[in-house]
Amino acid sequence: MTSSASKSWLLLLGFILFYVIYLLLGALVFSSIERPVEDKLRNDIQTMQREFLNQTCINATALEEFLVKALSASEYGVSVLKNSSLNSNWDMASSMFFANTLVTTVGYGHSTPLSDMGKAFSILYALIGVPFTMLVLTASVQRLMYPLVYAPQALFQRSGLDPRPASQLHFALLLAAVLVCFFVAPAFVFRAIEGSWSFLDSVYFCFMSLCTVGLGDFVPGEQPGQKYRSLYKVVVMVYLFVGLMMMYLLLRAFHKMADLHGLTSFLELPHCEEPEGDLRPILGDGPTDTGPPPPGPLHHRAATKQPLEPAAQPSYNTISKG
Amino acid sequence: MTSSASKSWLLLLGFILFYVIYLLLGALVFSSIERPVEDKLRNDIQTMQREFLNQTCINATALEEFLVKALSASEYGVSVLKNSSLNSNWDMASSMFFANTLVTTVGYGHSTPLSDMGKAFSILYALIGVPFTMLVLTASVQRLMYPLVYAPQALFQRSGLDPRPASQLHFALLLAAVLVCFFVAPAFVFRAIEGSWSFLDSVYFCFMSLCTVGLGDFVPGEQPGQKYRSLYKVVVMVYLFVGLMMMYLLLRAFHKMADLHGLTSFLELPHCEEPEGDLRPILGDGPTDTGPPPPGPLHHRAATKQPLEPAAQPSYNTISKG
Repeated sequence: MTSSASKSWLLLLGFILFYVIYLLLGALVFSSIERPVEDKLRNDIQTMQREFLNQTCINATALEEFLVKALSASEYGVSVLKNSSLNSNWDMASSMFFANTLVTTVGYGHSTPLSDMGKAFSILYALIGVPFTMLVLTASVQRLMYPLVYAPQALFQRSGLDPRPASQLHFALLLAAVLVCFFVAPAFVFRAIEGSWSFLDSVYFCFMSLCTVGLGDFVPGEQPGQKYRSLYKVVVMVYLFVGLMMMYLLLRAFHKMADLHGLTSFLELPHCEEPEGDLRPILGDGPTDTGPPPPGPLHHRAATKQPLEPAAQPSYNTISKG
Repeated sequence: MTSSASKSWLLLLGFILFYVIYLLLGALVFSSIERPVEDKLRNDIQTMQREFLNQTCINATALEEFLVKALSASEYGVSVLKNSSLNSNWDMASSMFFANTLVTTVGYGHSTPLSDMGKAFSILYALIGVPFTMLVLTASVQRLMYPLVYAPQALFQRSGLDPRPASQLHFALLLAAVLVCFFVAPAFVFRAIEGSWSFLDSVYFCFMSLCTVGLGDFVPGEQPGQKYRSLYKVVVMVYLFVGLMMMYLLLRAFHKMADLHGLTSFLELPHCEEPEGDLRPILGDGPTDTGPPPPGPLHHRAATKQPLEPAAQPSYNTISKG
């Protein structure tokens, strides 16, 4: 690995470390702001329920009043039900999970800040966190483009395929791999862990999460008596992050393929920018310990990238053999 | 306007038209799948409430059982409360609103599909809808980059500013305009319309929506007896769409500025691709009725875009005066 490549991965490691610290910090603040408010709401609703049960006969108006409170508490993730009131939504793991769904823009909303301070902090936290998460995801994908997109495409081309079929074949394989590893396999795991989820529910959860829709009708680790709840929440967070990265990689690969087929030019959309730098070492033909790459086929390719005719799109074959 | 420019806007119009048709189709399907299920759930819960009220004395177990059903119905957006059971979550306007929050990935989740068919259709609908919406947004922003980013930047440069300060000044102005038009002003409107929202709640709603987090603790048009509910929902949809477009434009402008300051190169991230084509006519110097732009400063600029030193970044001054 060249020194510039290791610097590049070190930079990424720094980003990810900072990302984790940012999540931990967020969890700490959310937990300290929201936990007392949640406890108060939970106590209030339990007192109210006791008072309601102490009445001698049922009164429709009293029931309606009680329900108004119970439903509004439930919207904030505080349940009046006996078996679900054990887990806090604002312990460290849950707060970190909330912080994570904020910055990734998934936003399940199964628990939301109750206090004005919590809401204001959410805005501030997302204001910095969302762009930063995008940066970390972009940086990760940028570094994964060589091993997972360019290298396999170059391999297909070396075995005799033209650029377009090579990119199609590669995209189909990548799509299948992402489907299996990030939708089907996790769905089996979620169905096994979450008692009440069907397989469709689990796939629906994976899909709605990795598209960042995050409807929040299914959220892992929320069933009463969940074993290893904190660990489970952290694992789901890692799944979400890596999953989002792969979705973004898939999108970049699709964009690349669309460029190659002249689709982006036809629709007058921006082109997928190719990462510069150490493509040659990874493709296995260039010198392995140079600093900045010397002017050559790679720079020629970069300079001639602009002409938009699909036929003018350079082949990776040319690059690796150049 | 050149013929290629009008072709470009016509294409965009086609996209937007197709987007609206896609939303209408989605609304139709969601409404026909989910409305009967919702009606059944609402009837069940009302029967249950009547039965509960008919008991002579209050039983804690019976209350718990009733609450389990009431809370689970509430998660799907069906309320047992008297004054909120009038609005369906799956009439045409609400279904279209739901379809819109799916494809834009905002995903409030205040109402979610109940049936397996509804969930399966949601997956399929988002599978096509999310990438298509991204395409429409990208195409829109691509066409807005000239009038809202390149033209004002060129103007600042013509009045004597260097490229970097020009891009900073432009970004600050754009940011302020977006803040006022898409956060502060709408927040005043929401606070006025939604009885129970504070100003902070309204800003929080705007922010969480336009970042596509969509927590769903605040959703417009859900208060009982909302006047012109359908129209209001449609207006909010338009606001969300244009708002997302402006957020994306802001991101592109920031990316452009980061490129200019060498930040993207430093962090080894992809660069912001500049749209090609009719920059010259819009900047007001070029011929106004040519087809494809002739080779010249613009093409020279495109070809020399690749070198990554910030100093090598061409100035728009050069382009418009070239």
